Amino acid sequence: MDDNHESMRRKPIGIFDSGVGGLTVVGEMNRLIPGEDIVYFGDTARFPYGTRSPERIVTLALQNSRMLLDFDVKMIVVACNTASSVALDELKDKLPVPVIGVIVPGSFAAAKSTKNGRIGIIGTTATVSSGSYQRELTRLNPDFEVFAVACPLFVSLAEEGWTMGPVARMIAETYLADLRLSGIDTLILGCTHYPLLKQTISETLGDNVIIVDSAEATVKRVFNSLSQNEIMNNNGEHGRYRFLVSDSPEKFREIGEKFLSISIDEVKKVTLED
Amino acid sequence: MDDNHESMRRKPIGIFDSGVGGLTVVGEMNRLIPGEDIVYFGDTARFPYGTRSPERIVTLALQNSRMLLDFDVKMIVVACNTASSVALDELKDKLPVPVIGVIVPGSFAAAKSTKNGRIGIIGTTATVSSGSYQRELTRLNPDFEVFAVACPLFVSLAEEGWTMGPVARMIAETYLADLRLSGIDTLILGCTHYPLLKQTISETLGDNVIIVDSAEATVKRVFNSLSQNEIMNNNGEHGRYRFLVSDSPEKFREIGEKFLSISIDEVKKVTLED
Repeated sequence: MDDNHESMRRKPIGIFDSGVGGLTVVGEMNRLIPGEDIVYFGDTARFPYGTRSPERIVTLALQNSRMLLDFDVKMIVVACNTASSVALDELKDKLPVPVIGVIVPGSFAAAKSTKNGRIGIIGTTATVSSGSYQRELTRLNPDFEVFAVACPLFVSLAEEGWTMGPVARMIAETYLADLRLSGIDTLILGCTHYPLLKQTISETLGDNVIIVDSAEATVKRVFNSLSQNEIMNNNGEHGRYRFLVSDSPEKFREIGEKFLSISIDEVKKVTLED
Repeated sequence: MDDNHESMRRKPIGIFDSGVGGLTVVGEMNRLIPGEDIVYFGDTARFPYGTRSPERIVTLALQNSRMLLDFDVKMIVVACNTASSVALDELKDKLPVPVIGVIVPGSFAAAKSTKNGRIGIIGTTATVSSGSYQRELTRLNPDFEVFAVACPLFVSLAEEGWTMGPVARMIAETYLADLRLSGIDTLILGCTHYPLLKQTISETLGDNVIIVDSAEATVKRVFNSLSQNEIMNNNGEHGRYRFLVSDSPEKFREIGEKFLSISIDEVKKVTLED
């Protein structure tokens, strides 16, 4: 049993996202639980997820998870808000390892932050339509008032690198006009791309709105789950990070290093079923 | 042989695009060769193509074409500029029917339009990086000066429906600033989404730039190919149109009707290998 446990501790954690955005979660892992090995998969061949149908998103999330299971991971972290919103229940039902998404931790962080109970959430069309954050927040406190806005162009802006300046500002003002009037004191960035636009979003909404990014809250939950299950890797060395993508490894490395404060040494291309 | 020819005439034409954009080609077919049956496939599950790697685009184009061959098509029209730019040679080598892309016809139309030999081309990152239009235009006339600009955000703008107004205008002014100084008298819209932004693009570049959309030129080429091979469907009835997508049929119909002046009755979802 001890040997068994020891080998379980040493297994990597699998993380997937539709692309580079989930690297914000890897960054937090590096900061908070640096001993863990990580296998990260960015599904760049089928990015973006946020405009796809729920059925398609479930199919993609299951394929990605099964691919990570081939690396003998001890846990799967769904870093993608869209996949967490739409596919998490199905993944939990079907996978033989713990599965952690970003919606519950992000909602928990927002609930701790808010003083007036008015919380904004911005994300992709699929995330907002799913109602996942709205459900989780009102489960935490039925008195919360939740204001959700889909901002699909933010993903393209972040990919294009236009994260500040007049174009980003005008798009932010267009999407966030109603939120600005809603009296929220906390905003959840419900898409892993949006932290790149944080400054523009914050300038648009004003200093009195606290911005919550779910990456840190998610990694705290991973930490707790590893502790509770006694499977934290505590051999004292820094974990090994492997990065896999389904398309364009070079582009992933290039954009990825904007997201991550550590360097990305090697990115390997894998082929899924299609 | 006559019977054989007659059955060949009655076969449908297959058209594919990464999504809805290629419906501009269907619209021109409806206008110029209304007797032809059409099977249109929009690869909405894997849209967009313009940011993918060349290898991935070739894989997708071959899968789409093989799916259309299952409908016993007599010809394949690659309505997508990205796939035409990157995958056309491979498709021509591997498919048993004539394959027509949009680059050669679009270039031909621009060559006929220009008076000063200075031609602009805007498209996706993959289309512009491939150099396809640049090669074809200088093949038509080595003295042409070609100015190519990738405008990746235009696709998201068109999908979001923000085709006019201050955001579209500011993005157009950012992308087209250099083109405005280049002295071009003709601009090719090298992406099937861009016709939706035609007014904004035209206002940005000014009245003295003629805008060429390759859909009409492409259908003229289809007409010529059908004539030369004596396989035009001339049974006097309007052709039957079938629409297939790999994801979100409802959304396809909704956005599609913006592109097409005829109504889209039924959209069927198909599953490719993944």
